Amino acid sequence: MKRFSIRYKDWNPKEQKHREAICTLANGYIATRGAAEENGNTEHNYPGTYLAGGFDRAWTEIAGRTIENEDFVNFPNWLSLSFRPQNGEWLNLEKFKVLDYCQTLKMKKGILERKFRVEDSQGRRTFIRSRRLVSMHKKHLACLEWTFRPENWRGEVEFLSGLDGKVTNDNVARYRELESHHLDPLGTDQTDDHIIELSVRTKQSKITMVQAARTIVYNRGQAIQTAIETHQKEYDIHQIIRFDVKEREEYTVEKTVAIYTSRDVAISEPALEARKAVRRAGSFKDTLRKHTQAYKTLWYRADIRLAGDDKNQLLLHLHIFHILQTLSPNVIGVDVGVPARGLHGEAYRGHVFWDELFVFPFLNLRFPEITSSLLMYRYHRLTEARYAAKEEGKNGAMFPWQSGSNGRSESQVLHLNPESGRWIADNTYLQRHVNSAIAYNIWNYFLTTDDRKFLSFVGAEMFLGIASFWASMVIYNAEQDRYEIHGVVGPDEYHTAYPGSETPGLNNNAYTNVMAAWVMQKALEILEIIGTRRKEELLRLLDINAMEIQLWKEISHKMYVPFIGHGIINQFEGYEKLEEFPWEEYREKYGDIHRLDRILENENKDPNSYKASKQADVLMLFYLFSKDEIGSIFKQLGYEMTEDIIVKNIEYYRKRTSHGSTLSRVVFSWVLLKYNQLQSWENFEKVLVSDFEDIQGGTTAEGIHLGAMAGSLDLVQRGFLGLEVGEETLWINPLKLAYIKKLSLKVKYRSHWILVALVGKTLKITFKEGYKDTLKIGVIDEIFEFRQGKTQEFSLA
Amino acid sequence: MKRFSIRYKDWNPKEQKHREAICTLANGYIATRGAAEENGNTEHNYPGTYLAGGFDRAWTEIAGRTIENEDFVNFPNWLSLSFRPQNGEWLNLEKFKVLDYCQTLKMKKGILERKFRVEDSQGRRTFIRSRRLVSMHKKHLACLEWTFRPENWRGEVEFLSGLDGKVTNDNVARYRELESHHLDPLGTDQTDDHIIELSVRTKQSKITMVQAARTIVYNRGQAIQTAIETHQKEYDIHQIIRFDVKEREEYTVEKTVAIYTSRDVAISEPALEARKAVRRAGSFKDTLRKHTQAYKTLWYRADIRLAGDDKNQLLLHLHIFHILQTLSPNVIGVDVGVPARGLHGEAYRGHVFWDELFVFPFLNLRFPEITSSLLMYRYHRLTEARYAAKEEGKNGAMFPWQSGSNGRSESQVLHLNPESGRWIADNTYLQRHVNSAIAYNIWNYFLTTDDRKFLSFVGAEMFLGIASFWASMVIYNAEQDRYEIHGVVGPDEYHTAYPGSETPGLNNNAYTNVMAAWVMQKALEILEIIGTRRKEELLRLLDINAMEIQLWKEISHKMYVPFIGHGIINQFEGYEKLEEFPWEEYREKYGDIHRLDRILENENKDPNSYKASKQADVLMLFYLFSKDEIGSIFKQLGYEMTEDIIVKNIEYYRKRTSHGSTLSRVVFSWVLLKYNQLQSWENFEKVLVSDFEDIQGGTTAEGIHLGAMAGSLDLVQRGFLGLEVGEETLWINPLKLAYIKKLSLKVKYRSHWILVALVGKTLKITFKEGYKDTLKIGVIDEIFEFRQGKTQEFSLA
Repeated sequence: MKRFSIRYKDWNPKEQKHREAICTLANGYIATRGAAEENGNTEHNYPGTYLAGGFDRAWTEIAGRTIENEDFVNFPNWLSLSFRPQNGEWLNLEKFKVLDYCQTLKMKKGILERKFRVEDSQGRRTFIRSRRLVSMHKKHLACLEWTFRPENWRGEVEFLSGLDGKVTNDNVARYRELESHHLDPLGTDQTDDHIIELSVRTKQSKITMVQAARTIVYNRGQAIQTAIETHQKEYDIHQIIRFDVKEREEYTVEKTVAIYTSRDVAISEPALEARKAVRRAGSFKDTLRKHTQAYKTLWYRADIRLAGDDKNQLLLHLHIFHILQTLSPNVIGVDVGVPARGLHGEAYRGHVFWDELFVFPFLNLRFPEITSSLLMYRYHRLTEARYAAKEEGKNGAMFPWQSGSNGRSESQVLHLNPESGRWIADNTYLQRHVNSAIAYNIWNYFLTTDDRKFLSFVGAEMFLGIASFWASMVIYNAEQDRYEIHGVVGPDEYHTAYPGSETPGLNNNAYTNVMAAWVMQKALEILEIIGTRRKEELLRLLDINAMEIQLWKEISHKMYVPFIGHGIINQFEGYEKLEEFPWEEYREKYGDIHRLDRILENENKDPNSYKASKQADVLMLFYLFSKDEIGSIFKQLGYEMTEDIIVKNIEYYRKRTSHGSTLSRVVFSWVLLKYNQLQSWENFEKVLVSDFEDIQGGTTAEGIHLGAMAGSLDLVQRGFLGLEVGEETLWINPLKLAYIKKLSLKVKYRSHWILVALVGKTLKITFKEGYKDTLKIGVIDEIFEFRQGKTQEFSLA
Repeated sequence: MKRFSIRYKDWNPKEQKHREAICTLANGYIATRGAAEENGNTEHNYPGTYLAGGFDRAWTEIAGRTIENEDFVNFPNWLSLSFRPQNGEWLNLEKFKVLDYCQTLKMKKGILERKFRVEDSQGRRTFIRSRRLVSMHKKHLACLEWTFRPENWRGEVEFLSGLDGKVTNDNVARYRELESHHLDPLGTDQTDDHIIELSVRTKQSKITMVQAARTIVYNRGQAIQTAIETHQKEYDIHQIIRFDVKEREEYTVEKTVAIYTSRDVAISEPALEARKAVRRAGSFKDTLRKHTQAYKTLWYRADIRLAGDDKNQLLLHLHIFHILQTLSPNVIGVDVGVPARGLHGEAYRGHVFWDELFVFPFLNLRFPEITSSLLMYRYHRLTEARYAAKEEGKNGAMFPWQSGSNGRSESQVLHLNPESGRWIADNTYLQRHVNSAIAYNIWNYFLTTDDRKFLSFVGAEMFLGIASFWASMVIYNAEQDRYEIHGVVGPDEYHTAYPGSETPGLNNNAYTNVMAAWVMQKALEILEIIGTRRKEELLRLLDINAMEIQLWKEISHKMYVPFIGHGIINQFEGYEKLEEFPWEEYREKYGDIHRLDRILENENKDPNSYKASKQADVLMLFYLFSKDEIGSIFKQLGYEMTEDIIVKNIEYYRKRTSHGSTLSRVVFSWVLLKYNQLQSWENFEKVLVSDFEDIQGGTTAEGIHLGAMAGSLDLVQRGFLGLEVGEETLWINPLKLAYIKKLSLKVKYRSHWILVALVGKTLKITFKEGYKDTLKIGVIDEIFEFRQGKTQEFSLA
């Protein structure tokens, strides 16, 4: 791995908003842009701190628990640490002269490091190296270490170390008008000279969060005597730590923080546990060692090596790192889902959409325990989904498009167009296809792991509930002898109603219909897999009778799919009648038109009127299913879907998509893989830089795009390497890609670890270990029986 | 199933304390003794209400979460429902004349029913049938239904329906001097005419609990108009519901209650969820239907049929019922353990000991998902166990003998002898053998389920931690070339120190030593099973080096086991020198001497001085391991352990045990099975009635004995039927027991369901279903390959 460090010369945050960073590559590190909150000036959220910020938020366990419509709460700031020389001012990067500044996120070890030299108004120069971590080993612990060296001064210095509960959610500009305070104070306390404590409670969800912090100063490895004053308010507590420093001598300030919430397991109550944990915590070095070990374990499983372009490699690492920030083994058993922006920003307020569809393929093949825990998040909200269906007069379970906390719909009904300043009706809540995504995830988790316990125990209950919902959504068209679905919205959010219509929703969205038919096919298969007894129990529990099962069979053969002609699937019924969009005209006029909807609305035009999509809709089908799979689904429906036709569809929709979602690039890179390598690769590289270069025009500052990040990794494994999970066999069928020189990764297939490496035109496969002695691995068209420990090479020439 | 109903003629609670019930048997029901709290007089806890009380407490999710030393909190009382005719008094079973009274616990459906007729001071006679349930389908819901019929009067009637937060823990007489109030009020509220709400918070653990209740009155299937007055206090809220009744007309009062706590998943906040749940709840009938379905599902798996004696059958059902009350699928994923007294009483304040050792064999073979969730309870407390070991200067993980909440030791250091009124030092906390029990449970869960994911992911981490602890506990005796363990206490709690010694603990308790050696043997095996990579990771995580592994090997061959001579295992080193206890003398003097320790202490004598045990200690070894297994463990240690020697040991300790624990009878019935059928059966029948007839002299009122209840079921499956789980084969090797005419049950072995029936001398085995087509089942000495759906008969003649 290479070092990618960013240096800020004569750094001044106020001028840095869109400044390009100067980067150098080196060993395994990546820098974040911007400073962090730990400058003692917590009021500011400098632009671009999202990596660092996210790094700390990864701590939270309340992801995916939206707090009514106030939502997604930040933890109190534990990073508050500052200093002032005698008669000086508190360190403030806006007021001090910054001589050097370098901030580095060390992904391999999970540490954020900053090195900087500052000069105060009296010419006193100080060097500071700050390192911080949120422990991957003990999720309740975080540490901040300052190495502090006066360069040209001596005398008394004061350090300020605090816990600050006055944090707000002000990360997203357009939400700032809304309530941004989400914490009520419960009080502060000092346990002993070195330990302070802050308790707060979230306003709506009434979750108690307690932080305890211990600050100790060392010189030459020994804790030194300091004078400590503690200042307490309701909302914050801090200590002033006073001692004498010598010129060019090094001092280390270690701040160790523990946080517990009232939702943690195995606790008496949060304050007691936080106090205890911080009292028991070892030195920064101890914590760092265990933390690094934990990262080593994760990287061993998660790493993907791609030789050729250092930047691409680095970005793949960045994406893996961010997935682990949000979804590490520390979330197992915790009631959290997959929020669209991870834990790294406040956009969408922590809402859960369908992003897990893009994230699970990476997790399934490495950390299936995480996937099953995240599926449990859905399972715990099944009652709410059943109620939602009932309220709509439907059967089964209807998971909402946007949700959080207790699983009810949190979809907005209005949204703000920042271009026009207008609030406009939002029909995107009609994206019922999220239900099929959940079903797809259950099935693929099962296929990859063979976890029958999960399938039988909870997976089937959700899956059958979703099947039941679709069965109650269909309308029978007797004339055509086909089943239809009306009044929904597909993945493409530019089309949510017919032009001029008062009624929201569209009829027969092809993606929705085909996915519903697939759900029926698999539901029938699952009923066989789980066995007679469990089948009876579940059907009784879910009030599904024999007549309904008969209907499922019917639908799985007779779902309607609209076509435009020549095999082109119609995105929805009536799409064919919409105007072609004048792409060139608008590109010339506006430059970046990926958020076409806002531009059009600002011009008093309706995106519903055009053949222009925000993101892949029909093409999702070719993303989720292989050529053979989609062929067989269509065949069962009595339609033809050959490779030729697929290519035509890709071409048709490629020309009509604005990529207003980062997910769109993932899908396009995927579907183009076999048909247009150059375009596919261009899209892949776009996905890689999407958050790094913030290609969506500033949305990255509001949080990373977790689905797209994971999508880039899945492109490597299932796209480039052609990994495909079968019921008895793991298939590996790499594409011959001119852009890839060397590629290697590890995957876990049904508890067996397999190493796959592509070096030039040679494919090397090793069955590393597992509980069976032999394993079937299919390469291209042939199935090979691998013995444990055996490596086999294949020539792709 | 037969009906077992209890009738109370001219019922008067004050005189009923030890009254024997008159019982009749009928369809699937069992009566509880005593009345319930729902008589509008919640101040009283009538003796014998434990079944009913337990039934309601089964709702709690805070089992095994002791609240500091205040512990085990009761939910606010939701059963408060009463009536009074105009100008009359509120129903009070102490003041009203009770004409008829019959209370029935319907185990099959999980309903508690009471039918009674009362007459007030003005001669007004009223019939009431009350039915109540805590939903097995939706664990947050409970319902109470009163069918109410004025027999000889008419006019206005008032009903009182409330929620009462002034509950106390006063179930255990000797705890009543301690703090019994555990709830702080958070307030009451009325949402609409029919819904009231009460919020409380536990004093120490700060868990918020909110109840919402809806009361509606029906006549002839229609909700009727009533006048409602609501009375609110901080701690309780109730409604007075007024309407007119006709003579001999039937009215139904339905009270539906929802409870949520701040620890529930998938919630916004508890009050909102409780209100929502009660608003959405259907009628009593709807809830009853789903509840009954859920029970049907459970009984199908859990049932054990034993023909011959209706009472024995009934008691087996009672025991299954009580296990499901405490440990149903509703605990999966919830942070609860296995408290010794279930959720049915306050004795031991909800503490978790080692009872799961006796409970898991039943669960493993039917509901393995529950076992793995309960093992997670231990896993979440592993950090605390590691800290406890460190504090003692040991390595690895040391789980405490008594624990709760955050997993730290909750063992008492003093206990009260009610005989003498003295507080005496309690060394039982030195029962480190609880660690081996946890290891044993992990291994047997794995063997039964083949759940490699669990073993590799969490099981191994706990198991190796325990192995590491034992390795740091041993002392090398160079002279003997043996490893010893000093300063511990075995399962027998009468021996906790040497007579006259100031130092607590004993040296080389045979049970502890052998179990530690077994842990070493299995730890080495587990290191192989989990694979090289995981092994490396875990050893690094747990700081276990190659030298330590070498030590494990050593110990597994050289652990010291003390013998008295002639193959008799010495309970501990020095036991052989203790005085024989004059059993006959004390039996004559005191009658019941099962709590010998209290009797002796009252006489200023020390139980440590005698060869008298409270319960099985050495004999636990023959309970936990088959003859072959124990033979092989001893052989590896260089000792001989043949069937002959086993019989001698049983005889030796049988004569020296007072059965001061209900668990002792389980172990004795087990070990005697093959050698003395009559005595074994007598012990089995003792276990069956232990709570029903309260053979421990009144302790049942403080809560049932969950371990003994489960032990009786395990005696049937693994004892009588000789079920033994192998790595590839399920063994079934029934004993020829004169007492058993017909016996049948279902077991789940590695996801495959097997039906076993013993009819006279014919054994019928059916491989019902599973994901494999064939399954190996060993009968007596031969292995048979069963095809799915196939039944095979074997003659045992």
